Amino acid sequence: MDDRSDLDLLHADPREAEDGARPDDRIDDARLDGENTLKPDYVRAVREALEAGDDGAVYDLVEPLHPADLADLIELLERNERAVLAAAITDLMGSEVIAELNDFVREEMMEALPADAVAAIAEQLDTDDAVQLIEDLDEEDRQAILAELDDEDRVAIESALAYPEETAGRLMSREFVAVPEHMTVGDLIDYLRNETDLASDFFEVFVVDHKHHPVGTCALSWILTTPRGIALTDVMQRDQTLVPVMLDQEEVALMFQKYALISAAVVDESGRLVGQMTVDDVVHIISEEAQEDAMLLSGAGEGDINEPIREAYSARVRWLVANLGTAVVASTIIAMFGAAIEQLVALAVLMPIVASIGGNAGTQTMAVTVRAIAMNQLTEANTGRILWREFRVAFLMGVTIAILIGAAVSLLFTPMLGGVIAAAMIINIIIAGLAGVLVPVIFERLDIDPAVASSVFVTMITDSMGFFAFLGLAVAVGLAG
Amino acid sequence: MDDRSDLDLLHADPREAEDGARPDDRIDDARLDGENTLKPDYVRAVREALEAGDDGAVYDLVEPLHPADLADLIELLERNERAVLAAAITDLMGSEVIAELNDFVREEMMEALPADAVAAIAEQLDTDDAVQLIEDLDEEDRQAILAELDDEDRVAIESALAYPEETAGRLMSREFVAVPEHMTVGDLIDYLRNETDLASDFFEVFVVDHKHHPVGTCALSWILTTPRGIALTDVMQRDQTLVPVMLDQEEVALMFQKYALISAAVVDESGRLVGQMTVDDVVHIISEEAQEDAMLLSGAGEGDINEPIREAYSARVRWLVANLGTAVVASTIIAMFGAAIEQLVALAVLMPIVASIGGNAGTQTMAVTVRAIAMNQLTEANTGRILWREFRVAFLMGVTIAILIGAAVSLLFTPMLGGVIAAAMIINIIIAGLAGVLVPVIFERLDIDPAVASSVFVTMITDSMGFFAFLGLAVAVGLAG
Repeated sequence: MDDRSDLDLLHADPREAEDGARPDDRIDDARLDGENTLKPDYVRAVREALEAGDDGAVYDLVEPLHPADLADLIELLERNERAVLAAAITDLMGSEVIAELNDFVREEMMEALPADAVAAIAEQLDTDDAVQLIEDLDEEDRQAILAELDDEDRVAIESALAYPEETAGRLMSREFVAVPEHMTVGDLIDYLRNETDLASDFFEVFVVDHKHHPVGTCALSWILTTPRGIALTDVMQRDQTLVPVMLDQEEVALMFQKYALISAAVVDESGRLVGQMTVDDVVHIISEEAQEDAMLLSGAGEGDINEPIREAYSARVRWLVANLGTAVVASTIIAMFGAAIEQLVALAVLMPIVASIGGNAGTQTMAVTVRAIAMNQLTEANTGRILWREFRVAFLMGVTIAILIGAAVSLLFTPMLGGVIAAAMIINIIIAGLAGVLVPVIFERLDIDPAVASSVFVTMITDSMGFFAFLGLAVAVGLAG
Repeated sequence: MDDRSDLDLLHADPREAEDGARPDDRIDDARLDGENTLKPDYVRAVREALEAGDDGAVYDLVEPLHPADLADLIELLERNERAVLAAAITDLMGSEVIAELNDFVREEMMEALPADAVAAIAEQLDTDDAVQLIEDLDEEDRQAILAELDDEDRVAIESALAYPEETAGRLMSREFVAVPEHMTVGDLIDYLRNETDLASDFFEVFVVDHKHHPVGTCALSWILTTPRGIALTDVMQRDQTLVPVMLDQEEVALMFQKYALISAAVVDESGRLVGQMTVDDVVHIISEEAQEDAMLLSGAGEGDINEPIREAYSARVRWLVANLGTAVVASTIIAMFGAAIEQLVALAVLMPIVASIGGNAGTQTMAVTVRAIAMNQLTEANTGRILWREFRVAFLMGVTIAILIGAAVSLLFTPMLGGVIAAAMIINIIIAGLAGVLVPVIFERLDIDPAVASSVFVTMITDSMGFFAFLGLAVAVGLAG
């Protein structure tokens, strides 16, 4: 463990620095708060300048922003304000801003522009960002834009579009540095220094054999800390993580997390190096994928506040209709016990408690299971153990809740009804725990996304079993019906 | 846009490579499937060898694994098998394996080891990983381990532990490369090559002034592609993103995502460079934070399948008790309408449908809102717009569901009851939409984590309003009561 901060080259005593002077950095107090969010006062000032039609004032306000912050500003504005802002600051609307925009906002802005203007933006972007710009447009717009591009860019974008969405081939960058294995560290440094046409940001150099198969990877820090005469093959890491070109982005993201990668070579079916994925792109995918399951579990579609209302409505209402189906199933169970309820209205008062707590317990277990499946933590090798674990947690929770509700109902109604609700609660919470594991696991085995399908089924089970156990037990012990 | 893959140094025609030979890479078909998950057959083979007490066979099976895969294997095993495995392969249980282990599994294994053994492991780790190893142990164990460490390591770990959990100060790496601003590119390369005591992996070099304040950042690729004579101050990027030492990890993760950072300088209150955060560490935080909200929303605690049963029980049961409270509130509303239910038992049959669909609609909106808040997308500047957006989505969904259920109930029961349930459904879905935005936003303004607190309140509102609107309308129109 080495904790020096390599201060030995500094002549001044670092302790002198206690005077509190702050370096001129990104923490930009006039516009951003401590969480790097644009201040409401600042946004209001931009809005007022836009409304007043004062393009000069708008420009002065916006000009100091980092492209990522300018993208945030655009997202915060109303749809009609966005076009006005873009018109007032055309020369600031560079490719970095476009690349940073929320997908929905970007798509909406691009659809409002003529094809040649979108093509002019696409020309400035890296292939992977240009693909993102173009892939969601409809076929006609896409063709119009591709026709405006020069040949080289068009071919690169078309080659990316030939791979399915969300695969490494679609997402990878086609700009990377690959060198042959006979080089020394010195050769490589000379090559990098003399070559004027390299990507400006890269983190690793890939070493390839004569068939263009990757044979090793060199971190730039190893190159910089190694004498010039050493052979690259002695510095590089041979044990590499290669990304197959058809790999899904979710698995790419897990690979980067699992092996702590900075970049990785993408190889085609014959093992040839065709592109690279870098961690700065993967960071977005990790965040998207991690949130996607949560959104799917709650039936919120893409779950993005910028999603057009029509799309949000259509994704969410489908979910409510599915849940309407499960609610109707639960209602038919209640209907079976209509006579009992007429006789003892307390049953109607208490039955939603059993169903609701069961539903919550099922949601808890299901959330844990879906996450473990997504993270590749739950496999055939440990399903039995996890089921047993969740059974025990559910049993403990069932007993706890049963005691609380059983005691309360015994006091407020009758001890017999208290016993019935306590027993129904234990039964339903245990069923919820088992369903919360088994339903997602079964969907996963059937190759159905557990995050999409599980919730409706688990809720149906816990609702129906909640009503059935409570009302059925009440009838069985002769309380009613 | 530049799509060359820098093949010009390769003498062979890349098209020769179509022979399909696969490079010897991490895609390890005997042990891993296409998703980099350990195959069940392989895990079974390790288990059988462990059970047979055949340490040699265990070693041979496990030895080819990458440390991250070995960590996965340990997690997949039962608790008692883990200790047996660790004993059989002590020399493979290196620091990379320990650093990759799930927090709960690592803690459990560390608690089983004597202090000097844990200290020996901690000595091998980078400070940030060593801190992670030690921070969750109880005070006594922690002190015992710190006492075993040499002075330098102990001081570094104690300095990290002095910062609150989940802040940059706790998480940052204290190994980084900082150089003074008067250097040229050539000076820097010579320094890096001659200095034997540098961190082995770094992605950027920080340039600091005489007060040790960062004044710029140099990506290694810029250093490698620039002639030796150029001054560092002409290559470096002056506009840097600095991480304050007290910044919460959630904000650090958002910063890395927003500004696409590879590493960032961590500065103390006086602006001095004290550490760095690198993207490979932040990747774990991004994934954790993105999933944390989903787990909190469903009341699943840490939501980790490796969490000890006791802890999982205690986190989850608290949630069920809170929901028991909200369910009881809803029940008291039903109790107010006991006479109506006795008169028309169809009310008891149908009322859970109104509450349940309202609950689902509320969960959807709440999930979207909590995510937008976490991503800094929902601020004071656009709350009004989002509320209006969610109102419109809810209105459309309410009308759709009302037509479906209203028509069905009109046919199966009476048109009057169909009208009542349709009206109650529209009311409850709109209330759900508004509550789904307002509850998390209000908690956020009150500095209460919206992911923790919102769900209970939104459910209470949708359940209670569902019963109240439906039963109340039924009584108001004279159907019962």
